[in-house]
Amino acid sequence: MTHVFDEATTVEKLDSADRYTVRATTHPAYNNMVGPFGGITAATVVRAVSDHPDVLGDPLALTINFAAPIAEGEWELALEAIRTNRTNQHWTFTIGQNDQIVATGTAVFGVRRETWADTEGDAPQLPPVDDVPATDFPDFIAWARNYDKRFVTGSLEAASDDSTSTLWLRDEPPRPLDFPALTSMTDAFFPRVFLRHGTYMPAGTISLTTYFHATRDELAAQGANSVRATARGTRFGNGHFDQYGQIWGDADVLLATTHQLVYYKDAAQ
Amino acid sequence: MTHVFDEATTVEKLDSADRYTVRATTHPAYNNMVGPFGGITAATVVRAVSDHPDVLGDPLALTINFAAPIAEGEWELALEAIRTNRTNQHWTFTIGQNDQIVATGTAVFGVRRETWADTEGDAPQLPPVDDVPATDFPDFIAWARNYDKRFVTGSLEAASDDSTSTLWLRDEPPRPLDFPALTSMTDAFFPRVFLRHGTYMPAGTISLTTYFHATRDELAAQGANSVRATARGTRFGNGHFDQYGQIWGDADVLLATTHQLVYYKDAAQ
Repeated sequence: MTHVFDEATTVEKLDSADRYTVRATTHPAYNNMVGPFGGITAATVVRAVSDHPDVLGDPLALTINFAAPIAEGEWELALEAIRTNRTNQHWTFTIGQNDQIVATGTAVFGVRRETWADTEGDAPQLPPVDDVPATDFPDFIAWARNYDKRFVTGSLEAASDDSTSTLWLRDEPPRPLDFPALTSMTDAFFPRVFLRHGTYMPAGTISLTTYFHATRDELAAQGANSVRATARGTRFGNGHFDQYGQIWGDADVLLATTHQLVYYKDAAQ
Repeated sequence: MTHVFDEATTVEKLDSADRYTVRATTHPAYNNMVGPFGGITAATVVRAVSDHPDVLGDPLALTINFAAPIAEGEWELALEAIRTNRTNQHWTFTIGQNDQIVATGTAVFGVRRETWADTEGDAPQLPPVDDVPATDFPDFIAWARNYDKRFVTGSLEAASDDSTSTLWLRDEPPRPLDFPALTSMTDAFFPRVFLRHGTYMPAGTISLTTYFHATRDELAAQGANSVRATARGTRFGNGHFDQYGQIWGDADVLLATTHQLVYYKDAAQ
């Protein structure tokens, strides 16, 4: 049986276009309050590049800018490898819908080679996943039902002066982790202004950047186990805030780091 | 007298191109070990977008991917505003040199409006700038001579198990802070692998993302005073590491946050 994540990130190659273009379709299971969950859109890009016949290696970096809401239905992703070096490859992409550009971005793929290695910073020390209750988001956040979320700090139950959320996170139903799924998880934190205010507000990601630290072997070792995800905003003001996050796997392997800029509106506006 | 930073980020509009294109020229004062310092290239992009006749507002986000070394001499920057919304504007850009693409990226500009605001996290508490001695980088890092750098932690004098550098930083000679100068400062940390190893190694930024939190008024208030800059790498391995950084101004105003992915090579390769 195909996992709903794989259904939602499936694309079809379009032969007619002058650039390498694929067609994707929004999936109701990953709807957000307005349009699709940004994480599933980003994951679709990573999957489409990974499946490109000329791809070199695995994802290293992704930036996606959400320029306009994506409507339910079909959208087109045009991909271009603008430069291929010996160990890395630079991509640009454009997402169009109804003859309008709704998103743009860049990706870097590359080959990982063994070098001196170390991880700084501490993986969140959390109670065992089975000791933390799973929480649901409200029904109007459809995409969140595809994640098993166990908040240790920063759930949406009360306003907090600290915008940090730290949780156990995995696909629901469980699914072996791969680069597209990891991409989506780096956007699976609800907007930090919700946590600061203890309520929902108009907010949306403007720009998301994810760096992939995991190797294929590390993802295979992680399998379908829950990861530890943590994110925090630093400065909120003038209609925008940043969010920095990390995704940690078993054995304290840092799988990804991520940084995003989010738009929000408050009652004063 | 024109400041060397302004000389180095000057561009000239090319009328012949089919896209809006400007010509820049590398400036020897901002050379790095190989090619120009990435910060000055990023700053030139921000200045060129800011000077575009159709620009909306001020910089919110910038991502630049360095696909190949830029050689000394002229380069061309093609800019496109792919979507202008009511309060923000999405740009894509390509940097070409000798008919090759050497860098690509995206920028988001926009209008800042007053909203609920707060800053989390702590500004680095440092001794007064005049109590910290200025340090020089070796002569072959030309660009660093255009910065007054006063390291409180993480100078390059000894290997460290912690890749954090925290310093007072300003243009040298002093220059009032603006968005291009702030952009450049977010790339002014030397590669974190140098600090971990206590020595220089082949390394270079692959992708740099900066979020601009400062308002124009905050930049004006900062003037030419030194900012507090701090950066740290989290995971080093397989030829890459990430670096997360913050730039703090007077009165503990967070001016910018930044995240970059860096390539490195060690003796084992």
